[in-house]
Amino acid sequence: MKTLYHFQTAARIEAGAHSLNLLGDHLDQTGLNQIRSVFILTQPSIVSLGYADQMKEVLAEKGISSEINTDIQPEPTEQNIEEVFQLFSEGGHDAILGIGGGSVLDAAKILSVLKTNEKPISALIGTNLVEKPGVPLVLIPTTSGTGSEVTPNAIVTFPEKELKIGMVIPYLLPSVVILDPVLTTGLPKAITAATGMDAFTHALESYISNKANPFSDMFALESMRLISSSIQEAYHHGDNLEAREKMLIGAMYGGMALTSAGTAAVHAMAYPLGGKYKISHGVANSMLLPHVTAFNADHVIDRLSDVAGVIGIEPKGSKASQAERVIRKIEEWTADLNIPQNLKTFGVSKEDVPSLAEAAADVKRLMDNNPKPMSIAEIEAVYLKLLDM
Amino acid sequence: MKTLYHFQTAARIEAGAHSLNLLGDHLDQTGLNQIRSVFILTQPSIVSLGYADQMKEVLAEKGISSEINTDIQPEPTEQNIEEVFQLFSEGGHDAILGIGGGSVLDAAKILSVLKTNEKPISALIGTNLVEKPGVPLVLIPTTSGTGSEVTPNAIVTFPEKELKIGMVIPYLLPSVVILDPVLTTGLPKAITAATGMDAFTHALESYISNKANPFSDMFALESMRLISSSIQEAYHHGDNLEAREKMLIGAMYGGMALTSAGTAAVHAMAYPLGGKYKISHGVANSMLLPHVTAFNADHVIDRLSDVAGVIGIEPKGSKASQAERVIRKIEEWTADLNIPQNLKTFGVSKEDVPSLAEAAADVKRLMDNNPKPMSIAEIEAVYLKLLDM
Repeated sequence: MKTLYHFQTAARIEAGAHSLNLLGDHLDQTGLNQIRSVFILTQPSIVSLGYADQMKEVLAEKGISSEINTDIQPEPTEQNIEEVFQLFSEGGHDAILGIGGGSVLDAAKILSVLKTNEKPISALIGTNLVEKPGVPLVLIPTTSGTGSEVTPNAIVTFPEKELKIGMVIPYLLPSVVILDPVLTTGLPKAITAATGMDAFTHALESYISNKANPFSDMFALESMRLISSSIQEAYHHGDNLEAREKMLIGAMYGGMALTSAGTAAVHAMAYPLGGKYKISHGVANSMLLPHVTAFNADHVIDRLSDVAGVIGIEPKGSKASQAERVIRKIEEWTADLNIPQNLKTFGVSKEDVPSLAEAAADVKRLMDNNPKPMSIAEIEAVYLKLLDM
Repeated sequence: MKTLYHFQTAARIEAGAHSLNLLGDHLDQTGLNQIRSVFILTQPSIVSLGYADQMKEVLAEKGISSEINTDIQPEPTEQNIEEVFQLFSEGGHDAILGIGGGSVLDAAKILSVLKTNEKPISALIGTNLVEKPGVPLVLIPTTSGTGSEVTPNAIVTFPEKELKIGMVIPYLLPSVVILDPVLTTGLPKAITAATGMDAFTHALESYISNKANPFSDMFALESMRLISSSIQEAYHHGDNLEAREKMLIGAMYGGMALTSAGTAAVHAMAYPLGGKYKISHGVANSMLLPHVTAFNADHVIDRLSDVAGVIGIEPKGSKASQAERVIRKIEEWTADLNIPQNLKTFGVSKEDVPSLAEAAADVKRLMDNNPKPMSIAEIEAVYLKLLDM
């Protein structure tokens, strides 16, 4: 538990079904009424569903021109983002709107500060290396997962290093966030599952983090309460708007919790799986979560019993048994949500484990938050469990 | 319950014992490293305790000059704020730091936008009439009450109208908030009591407000949980730093809840008591809270039973009986905290009630949030209860 702690978030957060249509008003209420041209960064699935054009129309009604771009790839590389930045620069836009999953939102955040800082990504990656605020930024998540819309982080994949690295600076926080559950009703089942478990991982890791504090605790517990009560419903009945709204708010609270408390070993160990094996961030986190939680359990029994209390586990038996039931519950979810349980599915073999463990141990920023120190051998042991060894 | 809702708060919130000493770092982390001269708005009691000089020293270490001003009166009038604004303007400062109770913080917020909008207070009072963001603003509460540090509102007293009116605009939200419980350990008992109950009132009114939503609900419930578990300890043992920290965070969450959901009839009825009879905002709210809650109860039984759950009332009996016990608990607190229970103490008589009720009914912005409509006769009946009639 930290004795000094802080909280920082998006300037304004709008929520509710169909809140997307009020984008023009939201800009006015945030003092962004001078914007004339917007770069809409999104992904093909969102264009197909008609949401990108809907944005274009809503902006046109306010006399704002816009250009739609779908060139950001999932888990984007430095080169991919730099290429899209060229198009953004040439378009003469004065604001960015990111509407999509975590990769699109992260890229939009990076484009915003690239524009004003006039340095390549490689010079800005890391913690607090960005010197100037970015151009106005609107973020609209279409998955309930990363919480990227309220975190000061953006992840870039470096294929040559087989690693994903974060850009961390408060300037990445947006001016406006819109949480419209309607946008998530068409989310494919596999993505609902992986991103939802990713969000739960953010909340749980923040709650057991060495930097947990009264701010992050509130967001983490409420995030886990909302997600646990809606993730299976959102997965099996994707058009349930109430479940979708709970997931969207829960994922954002997960982002707020991790902004204040940081994530820990699960995230450190997930990064190398994404960098080298292209395992999506959500899937990697979901696979690791029960095993890392089991490793940590004896150091965080009290905290895990709090978690039991908000995810609907009956308050019976010892705290240790409640902690145990939290882990069983996570395993139940990942099975019900059909999330892969074995790294072999992704072509990982026993021989890869030492280099994975080394790369994970190198993510010191996150490993330092873990409530129980992890040796290289202990990290390897967790990866081996995911290979059934 | 609103289906469209939003959340907006201070750009950065720092918390914890002795966080005050890190003001320089906090400014850097918020991109405010260009500030050269700060107007420190405070009150004599804070100067006596040495905190204003401490601020001056911390700023000087960063090469920032500053000037201390203590001319803001409790529940300040338009004229008082305009006079202090002249001094602020003449000083050539580029930022404001407000350190004190709600009156000082509200005044600091107003000075910040007066500087950039170049219009008198009378032209800016009301909702959304301020056109430009203010100068950088740091707010440091020394009471655990108003939550002013995270609300987009500032209250001005208009003696000639015998009324208090709010300036409401997101530009009043500060760049940095510092929540240092050490500052509140010297708070006199009567102020601990009144401001603490004021904070509880914000949370409870937000939770039963017609504009209550998933954002405000989380903050309101956590606020009530923190305040109910610490207000009596903070009152009887003012040097208990843990209780003081809970009160400070709880009061801020109350401010966040009301920013998203608004307050209701208690606040509408408290304003005329402040304007004409100089009853402090916290005392007026505390006196009104049990009576207005009793009036509202049959419309918000479910919500009041949620409140019972977080303020330590055993989950037994019907929801109606739990709601009833919430009201009894509030009465217990106000008695234990020696908050006056009769308006006669302040020179109010039966003959004043019709004009008080009319003025309260006129605060439509808040009366519209009340879960149960109140007729003039019903408003009068509540005031009469506070006159033992």
